[in-house]
Amino acid sequence: MRMYDLIDKKKNGGILSTEEMNWMIEGYTKGDIPDYQMSAMTMAICFQGLNDKETLDLTLAMRDSGDTMDLSAIQGLKADKHSTGGVGDKTSLVLTPIIAALGIPVAKMSGRGLGHTGGTIDKLECFPGFTTGISEETFINNVNHMKLAIAGQTANLAPADKKLYALRDVTATVDQMSLIASSIMSKKLASGSDIIVLDVKTGSGAFMEKEEDAKELAETMVRIGNMAGKKTAAVITDMDQPLGNAVGNSIEVIEAIDSLSGKGPKDLMEVVYALGASILVLSGGAKDRNEAIAKMQDCIASGKAKEKLAEFVEAQGGDASYVWDTAQFPATEYQVEVLASEDGYISRINAKEIGNACMILGGGRETKESIIDLSVGIYLNKKKGDFVNTGESIATIYANDKDKAQIALNRIQNAYRITKEAPDPTAMIKAFCGE
Amino acid sequence: MRMYDLIDKKKNGGILSTEEMNWMIEGYTKGDIPDYQMSAMTMAICFQGLNDKETLDLTLAMRDSGDTMDLSAIQGLKADKHSTGGVGDKTSLVLTPIIAALGIPVAKMSGRGLGHTGGTIDKLECFPGFTTGISEETFINNVNHMKLAIAGQTANLAPADKKLYALRDVTATVDQMSLIASSIMSKKLASGSDIIVLDVKTGSGAFMEKEEDAKELAETMVRIGNMAGKKTAAVITDMDQPLGNAVGNSIEVIEAIDSLSGKGPKDLMEVVYALGASILVLSGGAKDRNEAIAKMQDCIASGKAKEKLAEFVEAQGGDASYVWDTAQFPATEYQVEVLASEDGYISRINAKEIGNACMILGGGRETKESIIDLSVGIYLNKKKGDFVNTGESIATIYANDKDKAQIALNRIQNAYRITKEAPDPTAMIKAFCGE
Repeated sequence: MRMYDLIDKKKNGGILSTEEMNWMIEGYTKGDIPDYQMSAMTMAICFQGLNDKETLDLTLAMRDSGDTMDLSAIQGLKADKHSTGGVGDKTSLVLTPIIAALGIPVAKMSGRGLGHTGGTIDKLECFPGFTTGISEETFINNVNHMKLAIAGQTANLAPADKKLYALRDVTATVDQMSLIASSIMSKKLASGSDIIVLDVKTGSGAFMEKEEDAKELAETMVRIGNMAGKKTAAVITDMDQPLGNAVGNSIEVIEAIDSLSGKGPKDLMEVVYALGASILVLSGGAKDRNEAIAKMQDCIASGKAKEKLAEFVEAQGGDASYVWDTAQFPATEYQVEVLASEDGYISRINAKEIGNACMILGGGRETKESIIDLSVGIYLNKKKGDFVNTGESIATIYANDKDKAQIALNRIQNAYRITKEAPDPTAMIKAFCGE
Repeated sequence: MRMYDLIDKKKNGGILSTEEMNWMIEGYTKGDIPDYQMSAMTMAICFQGLNDKETLDLTLAMRDSGDTMDLSAIQGLKADKHSTGGVGDKTSLVLTPIIAALGIPVAKMSGRGLGHTGGTIDKLECFPGFTTGISEETFINNVNHMKLAIAGQTANLAPADKKLYALRDVTATVDQMSLIASSIMSKKLASGSDIIVLDVKTGSGAFMEKEEDAKELAETMVRIGNMAGKKTAAVITDMDQPLGNAVGNSIEVIEAIDSLSGKGPKDLMEVVYALGASILVLSGGAKDRNEAIAKMQDCIASGKAKEKLAEFVEAQGGDASYVWDTAQFPATEYQVEVLASEDGYISRINAKEIGNACMILGGGRETKESIIDLSVGIYLNKKKGDFVNTGESIATIYANDKDKAQIALNRIQNAYRITKEAPDPTAMIKAFCGE
């Protein structure tokens, strides 16, 4: 087999066989196929696409390029949830304790964030002592005993995807649907869960800005997941403004804890319930979405979900007293209010700009080596559709550096748009896919 | 400027500016832009194309990446001729002495062949002592005094093209029209002539097998040449069977000498006259094609063209006595006749297969390091449209190795097709372009 022939085939609209795809991904991972041939291939794929069979083959080849988790020692159907990412997305922190409290095992692998805020692991590390560096044995034991464990991704998870993504990132071939879907799904499939529920975000703060692109990506991933033998579903959710009110690390954790106390922001809870219902229905934990949502609401009202969070934090070395007393999370040196410059309705909050403001404050990573300030962040006092009077606070900045706070303030002011007319209400849940 | 942005622009159908093209080619030549980005770019160009302005910019940027010849010390309009290559193509050996004898300066840079036979330089080296390793001063003096000199390409001619072609060759991006045109034209423009006449071949033995592709390439190159301020024309000629009867090195030289003696094969002379007429008309050496052809025929009949060849060979160190006594060219050890296996008309001669047979005999280079046997070759006794009787010789193999002769014999037999019905006659000249 020659890579030249495979490039030529794809360039001319041909279909790569399973054997060819496996040979290519193995050769690329080992370094036998050079970057310059692979980048010609990915560019050809951008124009000619991959069909479902090819996308599945690519996904499985990338999954098998490194370690795969064996979760067979865990009883029952294991659930995992993945988000395509957005600003203020603390969904996992709220959702996973609820699902676990309802008896569905959640065996989750998470990454650290590279962007406006930290990832789920960074946020969990706001609990002093918390670690995802647990052994496979502890991971499996914890899921068996309390239905919830979160581990960091092993360094050798889908190395082919890591290498290919880095190449696509510098050759303008990131935005191809099948390549995006296979990148996400190769890692999810390597993580070994039986149920995969995907939160595909759309809007100004999402990777997929257009709703039709988000739908196409969701549908592709669901098909791939099902073809790979996993129960897979996706929910398309709004990311045109940040999710919930808190954007940062510890302030997002506090919002998640509040949500498990029954005081969650409406938009966040809608997303939590939508994703949770998909998991419960797929796992057999509820007969339909309505029953699933009722069970989740009961679970919160009974206090069991919050108890589950505390139990989980403690099991992974964290100080669970923070769950019961969030005032313990360290405060920032400065609090700066962002004031409305006119009367009117909030008609838009540019999610990316809010994310950038959080990054400027030190709440996110610019490079892998950046150290995150877990305490900083932005609390959005007003969200889309709210009415404000001139001089009223629309957002609160939590900062440890006055200059950075000032830059963030300008960013936030620019991110908000105030109009005389009320905007049309936003549907948080755009579509369900795969049920 | 970032290469990422240029790739993304082209991928989305954008137009690269002159500045961007220059920056890209300079950066790639210097090694600042890695192969993996350039191959993504060339693949994007395969799908989105380059407009004439971009193709010109690419051509000029590649021309300027290395040495360019300054021919301003030569009086008059200097002519150059280029062929896209084929089997049995000794056109330059016949054409250039005629044009020079008619007073038009021919300052030509040629390469060594990589393929079925040697290139023009290899063929000229059949004259003992002949060299293209002459100084720039000698080159210019010779053209001024006798209107003809042929030099080898300098190592630093369009290095950007050399690097880019090598990359395209391994990433399945060779066949894009603008990239082919700019590759050829960058080298032609660097050679400094005022008149460029292109022989674009089409058919089974040509790079452009389809006539419409040959036309598109010809038109693109003519536009580029004219935009670069050169008088440029092209002729689309047949290469569905080898040109003339001789395929090899010294046997092609003998056929060229015979042609200058008025005994040239009809198909070869048609190509010579078509290209020569374009040069004469563009240079003002004739008022129209008919006059040009008459002048060329007179030039041959008067013996002046052949004298010019002898003068030129001698001026570059070669033994010109071979021009007057071709029996001096060394004979091969073996002559093997290829016999017709049935009665009928020759309906097809696969040019590529004849070329491969010549290569097998040792007449061509497989790698840059190969040493060519100048004496071997194949003489086609019968060509398309000829009638043959069973057992009659259709071709003669000149070989120095019996085993190789046997392999070549099988190849040649497979290359010929004999049918009961006569084939439709082939038009040697398919089209003119640029006049």
